[in-house]
Amino acid sequence: MSELRKDPIIGRWVIISSERGKRPTDFVSPTIKRRKKAGFCPFCHGNEHSTPPEIMAFHSSSREGRTDWTLRVVPNKFPALHIEGELQRSGEGNLGRMNGVGAHEVIVETPNHALSLATMDSKSAADVFWAYYSRLSDLKKDPRFKYVLIFKNEGEEAGATLEHTHSQLIALPVVPKSVEEEIDAAKKYYDFMESCIFCDLVKNEIALNKRIILNYDNYVALTPYAPRVPFETWILPKHHESSFRPKNNDFNELAHIVQTILAKLDKILDTSPYNYIIHTSPFKEEENIYYHWHIEILPKLTRTAGFEWGSGFFINPTNPEDSARFLRE
Amino acid sequence: MSELRKDPIIGRWVIISSERGKRPTDFVSPTIKRRKKAGFCPFCHGNEHSTPPEIMAFHSSSREGRTDWTLRVVPNKFPALHIEGELQRSGEGNLGRMNGVGAHEVIVETPNHALSLATMDSKSAADVFWAYYSRLSDLKKDPRFKYVLIFKNEGEEAGATLEHTHSQLIALPVVPKSVEEEIDAAKKYYDFMESCIFCDLVKNEIALNKRIILNYDNYVALTPYAPRVPFETWILPKHHESSFRPKNNDFNELAHIVQTILAKLDKILDTSPYNYIIHTSPFKEEENIYYHWHIEILPKLTRTAGFEWGSGFFINPTNPEDSARFLRE
Repeated sequence: MSELRKDPIIGRWVIISSERGKRPTDFVSPTIKRRKKAGFCPFCHGNEHSTPPEIMAFHSSSREGRTDWTLRVVPNKFPALHIEGELQRSGEGNLGRMNGVGAHEVIVETPNHALSLATMDSKSAADVFWAYYSRLSDLKKDPRFKYVLIFKNEGEEAGATLEHTHSQLIALPVVPKSVEEEIDAAKKYYDFMESCIFCDLVKNEIALNKRIILNYDNYVALTPYAPRVPFETWILPKHHESSFRPKNNDFNELAHIVQTILAKLDKILDTSPYNYIIHTSPFKEEENIYYHWHIEILPKLTRTAGFEWGSGFFINPTNPEDSARFLRE
Repeated sequence: MSELRKDPIIGRWVIISSERGKRPTDFVSPTIKRRKKAGFCPFCHGNEHSTPPEIMAFHSSSREGRTDWTLRVVPNKFPALHIEGELQRSGEGNLGRMNGVGAHEVIVETPNHALSLATMDSKSAADVFWAYYSRLSDLKKDPRFKYVLIFKNEGEEAGATLEHTHSQLIALPVVPKSVEEEIDAAKKYYDFMESCIFCDLVKNEIALNKRIILNYDNYVALTPYAPRVPFETWILPKHHESSFRPKNNDFNELAHIVQTILAKLDKILDTSPYNYIIHTSPFKEEENIYYHWHIEILPKLTRTAGFEWGSGFFINPTNPEDSARFLRE
């Protein structure tokens, strides 16, 4: 039997329809698998010349005469937005327009083509979050930018055009719609309840213990009550933190919970493609009492179709209590 | 050079980034093609027993002893929502839930497996819209439903699980988020301007003549100012109509403009998969002065990736003035 569930943050309905998962299909690959192929890769060691000049890099204890970087951040060679120029708002009659000022950077997480964020060593994984934090801290100094969205596309079906594992960030002159929706909802909740909606959600979920996957000292991983896609997983700090930052000057615990979840998803879903995104407070309200940063992981097992485009709702064939149980075991 | 454009209806920003289209790709199929394969098809003539009992059908001038249906509407065999039962709102603590009451129907547009909505004869195409209208008129009598979303998934990458051309409808006990966003925006505009935002958009676009593809007596086809995907196309009535219905008791002109656009898209985009959806007023406000029904066609040439999931914005590598020019020529 199916049911409609309302996301407790932004109020979006989701149809949880377990029967839909049983559909026969006319097509060859109902699930999609990440591929690894050979060939020239601009993100591999030795091919540094084929990316634009690097913005920052981490290095291992250096040996003479070698570039032994362990992580690089480079401008996207085919950027969605461009770093040069003043922000100009203009329009065509009453139609709103801005020139495409922004930053679009690629975080090459490892020189090793064969590794993923799930399989790299724990130091390298923590470094990925240090790189995010470092770039955020730098980009927020630029008064043209209101937000930096950090995201990862892993696998072709998740939108990756290069398979060497990497993340991206886009610095934007506007706050994204999805973040604004969450912030508006969180503010309303705070006005009424005088507490952070995410803090309350975390406490409530830990008490219910139906959708919690991992419960660490400072972070939890859970399946949300109204997930958009099968095995959607959120990672949140347990205590109030409005903006993405290291806990006790340390990203080890965060890296560990992320790696553990990604490894579990890889195992259960046969290394399916996925996206993740980091939602944090906009620069102008970085420290606040109502919003709580978090990571949303969205495995790519289903396709966005007409119903989703037309409704803004999602049909999800897997209920989150089952997903959480699979991921716990 | 890229730019940000704001959708004039709901205010969503879109990044128009023509350079993104030039990316090299690691992967085999940058564009996706609709496939036609043999094998058992439950929607073909003679296989009527393999669908649930039909809800309605159109027939050609009948010959004795034969089922010569030309269009059938059947319940979805794997429905997202179920027609039986009373609507019950419940919850888990403060988490909102409804049982999955709704209707999920399939419109089999033709008995001929080889045809698409673009290639079928004009009478059959008009019948598709008559079938939509007939089902809408029937389902609105059910007090449990607030909205019926009509949509089409054509091709595997657009979410179709069966390739025989068909549309679907889902009757919902709630108004979809995307429709509510449009209606809220349209009401605000009406309060301020005392005119329908869509009527004004159509007039403005006809005057500008940069994004108009077809301009018929009663309908226009245009590329929107801030399209989410390459070659996104909207079809709207030129004169105010709040709800989907025949014009002068006739769907011929609407069917003609839809078929012409789909044939143009098929030609230019090499029969790429696509989705379309019909946005019409919710049942309780079917006749109104602020909202205007329309069809949104979304070719599936790009993938929804982390940036789109995380921001609610879209990166579109093709600008709508170019798309409109291609589609006009």
